[in-house]
Amino acid sequence: MNLRAYDALVSTFTRLYRYQHLGSIVGWDQAAMMPPKGNAARGAALAELEVLMHQTLTDPSLPDLMARAVDEALDAAQAANLREMRRDWRLANLLPARLVEAKSLASSRCEHAWRTQRAENDWPGFLLNFDEVVKLAREEAQCLSQHTGVGRYEALMDKFEPGARSADIDAIFGEVKTWLPGMISQVRDKQAGETLIALQGPFPIAQQRELGLELMALLGFDFSAGRLDLSTHPFCGGVPEDVRITTRYNPDDFMRSLMGIVHETGHARYEQNLPRDGVHLPVGRARSMGIHESQSLSFEMQIGRNPAFLALISPLLKKHLGDQAAFDATNLAGLFSRVKPGFIRVDADELTYPAHIILRYEIERALIDGEIEARDIPALWDEKMMAYVGLDTRGNYKNGCLQDIHWPGGSFGYFPSYTLGAMYAAQYFASIRQTQPDFETRMAAGDLSPLFDWLATHIWSQASRWETRELVQRATGEALNPQHLRRHLAQRYLGA
Amino acid sequence: MNLRAYDALVSTFTRLYRYQHLGSIVGWDQAAMMPPKGNAARGAALAELEVLMHQTLTDPSLPDLMARAVDEALDAAQAANLREMRRDWRLANLLPARLVEAKSLASSRCEHAWRTQRAENDWPGFLLNFDEVVKLAREEAQCLSQHTGVGRYEALMDKFEPGARSADIDAIFGEVKTWLPGMISQVRDKQAGETLIALQGPFPIAQQRELGLELMALLGFDFSAGRLDLSTHPFCGGVPEDVRITTRYNPDDFMRSLMGIVHETGHARYEQNLPRDGVHLPVGRARSMGIHESQSLSFEMQIGRNPAFLALISPLLKKHLGDQAAFDATNLAGLFSRVKPGFIRVDADELTYPAHIILRYEIERALIDGEIEARDIPALWDEKMMAYVGLDTRGNYKNGCLQDIHWPGGSFGYFPSYTLGAMYAAQYFASIRQTQPDFETRMAAGDLSPLFDWLATHIWSQASRWETRELVQRATGEALNPQHLRRHLAQRYLGA
Repeated sequence: MNLRAYDALVSTFTRLYRYQHLGSIVGWDQAAMMPPKGNAARGAALAELEVLMHQTLTDPSLPDLMARAVDEALDAAQAANLREMRRDWRLANLLPARLVEAKSLASSRCEHAWRTQRAENDWPGFLLNFDEVVKLAREEAQCLSQHTGVGRYEALMDKFEPGARSADIDAIFGEVKTWLPGMISQVRDKQAGETLIALQGPFPIAQQRELGLELMALLGFDFSAGRLDLSTHPFCGGVPEDVRITTRYNPDDFMRSLMGIVHETGHARYEQNLPRDGVHLPVGRARSMGIHESQSLSFEMQIGRNPAFLALISPLLKKHLGDQAAFDATNLAGLFSRVKPGFIRVDADELTYPAHIILRYEIERALIDGEIEARDIPALWDEKMMAYVGLDTRGNYKNGCLQDIHWPGGSFGYFPSYTLGAMYAAQYFASIRQTQPDFETRMAAGDLSPLFDWLATHIWSQASRWETRELVQRATGEALNPQHLRRHLAQRYLGA
Repeated sequence: MNLRAYDALVSTFTRLYRYQHLGSIVGWDQAAMMPPKGNAARGAALAELEVLMHQTLTDPSLPDLMARAVDEALDAAQAANLREMRRDWRLANLLPARLVEAKSLASSRCEHAWRTQRAENDWPGFLLNFDEVVKLAREEAQCLSQHTGVGRYEALMDKFEPGARSADIDAIFGEVKTWLPGMISQVRDKQAGETLIALQGPFPIAQQRELGLELMALLGFDFSAGRLDLSTHPFCGGVPEDVRITTRYNPDDFMRSLMGIVHETGHARYEQNLPRDGVHLPVGRARSMGIHESQSLSFEMQIGRNPAFLALISPLLKKHLGDQAAFDATNLAGLFSRVKPGFIRVDADELTYPAHIILRYEIERALIDGEIEARDIPALWDEKMMAYVGLDTRGNYKNGCLQDIHWPGGSFGYFPSYTLGAMYAAQYFASIRQTQPDFETRMAAGDLSPLFDWLATHIWSQASRWETRELVQRATGEALNPQHLRRHLAQRYLGA
């Protein structure tokens, strides 16, 4: 009996999944556990694993197997799996080895130097390395674009958000720009007249951790299949069978760490609830970065900052951090929805965050498509920050265009995922509200299960079975519709 | 220019070292960090890595490369490296795949069942699986013996202790048996007349941990290249660049955990001080299990239980665990040298420990060489326990021949390493005493550096450059001489 080509592919991709397991755990260890002197050997071990995974995905037998598998009698799930395998193969095989290596070298050099250049506000120094990174990213975009038939920038975006098209993002972000700056001003005016009771710190780290663990449990995190640890940059790592989330604590500010934990718990529950039978196959993994963010933001924005949820956890804050009037439910809702335009994306509140993303999207798209050069970035940054957020960033590269690791590291096309995630999340909850108009009452009473059931049914259990557009259509009955984010923001911040 | 065969081998073995790095860290994680539901996926990922490492070591190009490398102009270190590579190759290639697989299956089945059978004192049930394990271990021994020209049991022992010969071990252990049981009685009689102040617990775990960390620092552990964590079975893992030791705590008994930490710190310092330039090559790794144990036992027995060291740390115990008279230096020395024959090897004191090992060595050697069958073990166990330790174990399989994981797991030939390690350690310190007769005075004053310098010079920096016999000869000026252990024990326990 002949082995089907499809089965041979399943065996190769299962092996790849095992290698990824090793890489994920060792990568988590590097961020959360490893002492500093382990770094060089760790880097070498992870690089060796990269080589191995690349060899596996560029094995010369794969094209023939994939071609034969198309003609085999595959069921719908197997066909979807083959689609995802082909995508992985494309991403590993389309770029010439010379370009992959040059990109890796240029972006490590640029990112390494950026760590000091940012602190020193040194844009001209940064540009010396960054020009090469941009040149190679354009080559990559050109190469991917030729093979896939999509535009250059969208070929990069497709790596993170399969199927996303610039024309759609242009239309969506263009529409947001028509109302967001006005809404920010309106909310700022409204909040200027509201007085909130200030928090009285410090908040000891051990208590913050206990509070975080209790919230994770409330949000359904499975501690028999995951952990919470510390790292400089919080993330969700590990493998679906064993999800590792991290946070960092600041004794003077528990709010960021708390919402960070809620955010990562959203990512974690998606991973923990991917269907177990296919988790080792490409079709069994999380759909995309945008859909992943839609889970973390469902948890952080739709649930975590919801006044009903804050009412529910108000007693927990008092229990772990000590009783103070600032922890009363109404005041807490005020604190967690305070809008304050700022320079830094990762510190931005829910309302101004999309402005930071749209600005980056417009700049990186023009840069990759060759409409601007790297040297033009600061002027554009200043202009857009003034227009969208109302802040003057001239000469302040450090808190302006030098603030993110994405560009020095050569990651172009990732930023839109953040705001697409916020939009998907708002759309899910609009859909939930239709069938469960009382979900906030139940939430305040501690019953979050209807929300988790909805996410499990429509998103988590679906993994990569559908392309993103169809996943969202099936879940909510319509394609991505940014009006849901607008309504959510207007409702939360203007009571409209 | 042609690449030398030797250089091609270095490249392959460096790759293997990177794979081992991944396995070590992920294995440590499994024991110290992993939540229970991660186990199945972890097992699959580690098995995939095993397959990969086995493929690398059985690559058909290796025999030719090794044959050619012999004729290349290698310096002494390279020649030693080639010797170690050939050894690794032999261990991976001599056994037929069928036997490797059958062994792995039989020993997992036996070990898995043993976990409950031990608790249930079920020797007949155990035997049903164990007979197959013994049969396959004999086949392995036969196969290795044929290819290497050494005896069957010593072919197994050679895996852990390269170059060890049964005739030598027989002579050494035979000599120990002439004086050890008598010394145990003599010490028991002497100690019966000594009164010690009992410890007053409990000792909170957080304080035990702080004390352990302070001792590790005192013993030179480099925390920028390693960690201390918790696990059910304490071990030293990780990689030389990043050494992970573990312990477990019992609030009612801090002594075992404390000496456990001192023991693992000995293993750790060996790894942390292997020469950095060759750490990725076979010649750059620790010499053998016996030499590894000689480091942990240098730390635990020669340093840790030395009255001078206990005087040094007496104030630290009082600082972390609270002031009590039992922590006074003299009383502490008494507590840490109390001899009490018992059933369990891992709980044994320094003096009775070798008796547990000799008993196991004699039984496993006879078993592998076909002089006895598995069903004969209990009677022999009872006889030897009575003769060497003076305890009646009849019918008590659970605390007798079922107590260790080694045999059910198919590891025969490992046990001698423990007592060889104790002998090497005693021999090192006899040598140190010759050139530094005041080392205990300096130790009591907190100056341990001469001891560490000696170990660094003679053992740590030598890695696998020399075969064990030559390493010990170079370090101490003589071959392994068990009289040093006898003198050490007589001096410590009888003041003679």
